[in-house]
Amino acid sequence: MPFSFDSATFPRRIYDLIQREGLHHERFFSAHLRLASGAYFKQPGKCLRPKLLVLSCLAAGGDAERALPAAAAVEVFHTWTLLHDDLIDHDSLRRGQPTAHVLGAALAKESWELSEEYAADYGRSLAILAGDVLQGQAMHLIAGMADVDAELKNELLVKMSGELYPQLLGGEQIDVELSYREPEECRAEELLAMMRLKTGALLSYCAWAGVMLAGQNKRELAAKLANFAEFCGIAFQLQDDILGIKGDEKQLGKSTASDLREGKRTLLLCKAWQKITQNEKGLLIKTLGNPTCNSEELECARQIIINSGAIEESAELAQQYIDRAENILEEALPESTAKQGLRQWSAAMLKRKY
Amino acid sequence: MPFSFDSATFPRRIYDLIQREGLHHERFFSAHLRLASGAYFKQPGKCLRPKLLVLSCLAAGGDAERALPAAAAVEVFHTWTLLHDDLIDHDSLRRGQPTAHVLGAALAKESWELSEEYAADYGRSLAILAGDVLQGQAMHLIAGMADVDAELKNELLVKMSGELYPQLLGGEQIDVELSYREPEECRAEELLAMMRLKTGALLSYCAWAGVMLAGQNKRELAAKLANFAEFCGIAFQLQDDILGIKGDEKQLGKSTASDLREGKRTLLLCKAWQKITQNEKGLLIKTLGNPTCNSEELECARQIIINSGAIEESAELAQQYIDRAENILEEALPESTAKQGLRQWSAAMLKRKY
Repeated sequence: MPFSFDSATFPRRIYDLIQREGLHHERFFSAHLRLASGAYFKQPGKCLRPKLLVLSCLAAGGDAERALPAAAAVEVFHTWTLLHDDLIDHDSLRRGQPTAHVLGAALAKESWELSEEYAADYGRSLAILAGDVLQGQAMHLIAGMADVDAELKNELLVKMSGELYPQLLGGEQIDVELSYREPEECRAEELLAMMRLKTGALLSYCAWAGVMLAGQNKRELAAKLANFAEFCGIAFQLQDDILGIKGDEKQLGKSTASDLREGKRTLLLCKAWQKITQNEKGLLIKTLGNPTCNSEELECARQIIINSGAIEESAELAQQYIDRAENILEEALPESTAKQGLRQWSAAMLKRKY
Repeated sequence: MPFSFDSATFPRRIYDLIQREGLHHERFFSAHLRLASGAYFKQPGKCLRPKLLVLSCLAAGGDAERALPAAAAVEVFHTWTLLHDDLIDHDSLRRGQPTAHVLGAALAKESWELSEEYAADYGRSLAILAGDVLQGQAMHLIAGMADVDAELKNELLVKMSGELYPQLLGGEQIDVELSYREPEECRAEELLAMMRLKTGALLSYCAWAGVMLAGQNKRELAAKLANFAEFCGIAFQLQDDILGIKGDEKQLGKSTASDLREGKRTLLLCKAWQKITQNEKGLLIKTLGNPTCNSEELECARQIIINSGAIEESAELAQQYIDRAENILEEALPESTAKQGLRQWSAAMLKRKY
């Protein structure tokens, strides 16, 4: 029977593995730490990263079942970055539920009747530690794989710690710093480099790890699929930025205003900046990174970006990255069901609504 | 030539390894992330953990040189916990220098002339990411060890991720939560369990890893020295709490008021609580966890604790833990220079002034 990526089955299997891993760790945890470190697993995500890892493994002739713990590991890895990012970005919703630091603040009020300010402080502490917890869990899911030999596990962890970690965190930090820069001073190449690190590096790791799990000698194919995934990652981020302005809040499970309120310097914003009038720039700059602006001002800023035509340009650029990715894929692999799966996976980057 | 633990040589060697590791990662980093992730390595610490790891390796007949990268790893591991702890505890000084989030806030003011509030927010983000960076570096120092076979490295990482991570973070979170509890509701057993997790787990890991690096079959000895180190860890924390009230600020490189201002529930505080008058309790409770109290109030609170006699009691308990640790050590190993080193190492827990 072929491996099932059915949207009802696959995420459930990944999340079952994650939950079992969580149970191993949480013996030492207070109720709050259990809740916070497990919060983002209550509602299964799309499992884009586990799917990429398993598809890459299958495409390279490997065994999908054997790759599942690593697939769970990349989902947990992704989740700790979300926890710490949400805290850094002051986001309050994730998949329609409170983010970890917001949950922590609510727990503090409930448990000790703390004031707003003290509760927020406690929420931040809890989210930091819960993100740290998940870093341990991601590592343990790989280090503890029963059916994989130590050499290979070691190579997966060397890459995770020596490349993925510094690239992803370097990208995240550039993202934070850019938001303090004037929009006209943000260059497209810098923003693309940031996306490559922040979003591309983990997807690239997933594809690479999937192939390596099919055979440690398949380095050439692993490098090619890593490259494929990196381009998809940039397209994913471009689409993310579009959804951050134009998406459906219900489907997204978060506010479309948060990128603006946080003052994120997206390529979309920079493209819009080049197209709008001085007057529109003035209106936009008042909103960017201003936590006190009201919903009318945010809506006005959104409309300026939407009307600028930058969304269409970003979407076209995203399509170009997907095309480049698919060219790599065509060249790298003979036709197979898994290759077809990877093609659909990459096309889904741009079709997704959340 | 015997391996040198000379206070001029040994920390320098460990810090050189850490610096080299940092250079590998920081290619992807902005100047701020480089500064923040390297901040706590500017002034070598005491290297208690690396020393324990190498001594344990030597005591088990292993090669100290081969164990050095793992010794550097536990120092980096310890350092990320310090970075995130300092942020959670609102500490502003570490080894006489600004903590990472305070450094980050200063960088934000310098770079973008941000207000106090926004600069503090940026500082927090930077400290979170810098701590995450060090988690990757600690893992990479072990996963990347050249002279150690993959089986052993894998076992070191399984223990780090599956035991050390959840124990240490579980302990840290209990520490945070206890500070919201009334002092009379904090039980000694709970506080000791917290210390065992928060401080004992990492020392225990160091001793265990050192022995395992001498031979993966020396599990029995590894477990014994892990136990020895755990008891030393509790003694270390008891002494830390004493120094947090009675230490010399210059030598400590931090304020002796911070434990009180942060409202830490230490065993020392709980012992004092049982001995003081209702009036003294009233004075103390006004200071604990109150960031606005002035230096006179803090000094008054300190004196109440000092005069209660709880310090002598805590010191005696710490000595008992060292005695238990030394009994284990005596029984576990034949006499050797390394054993003598471990004996001195454990005695130093209580002699230290910072």
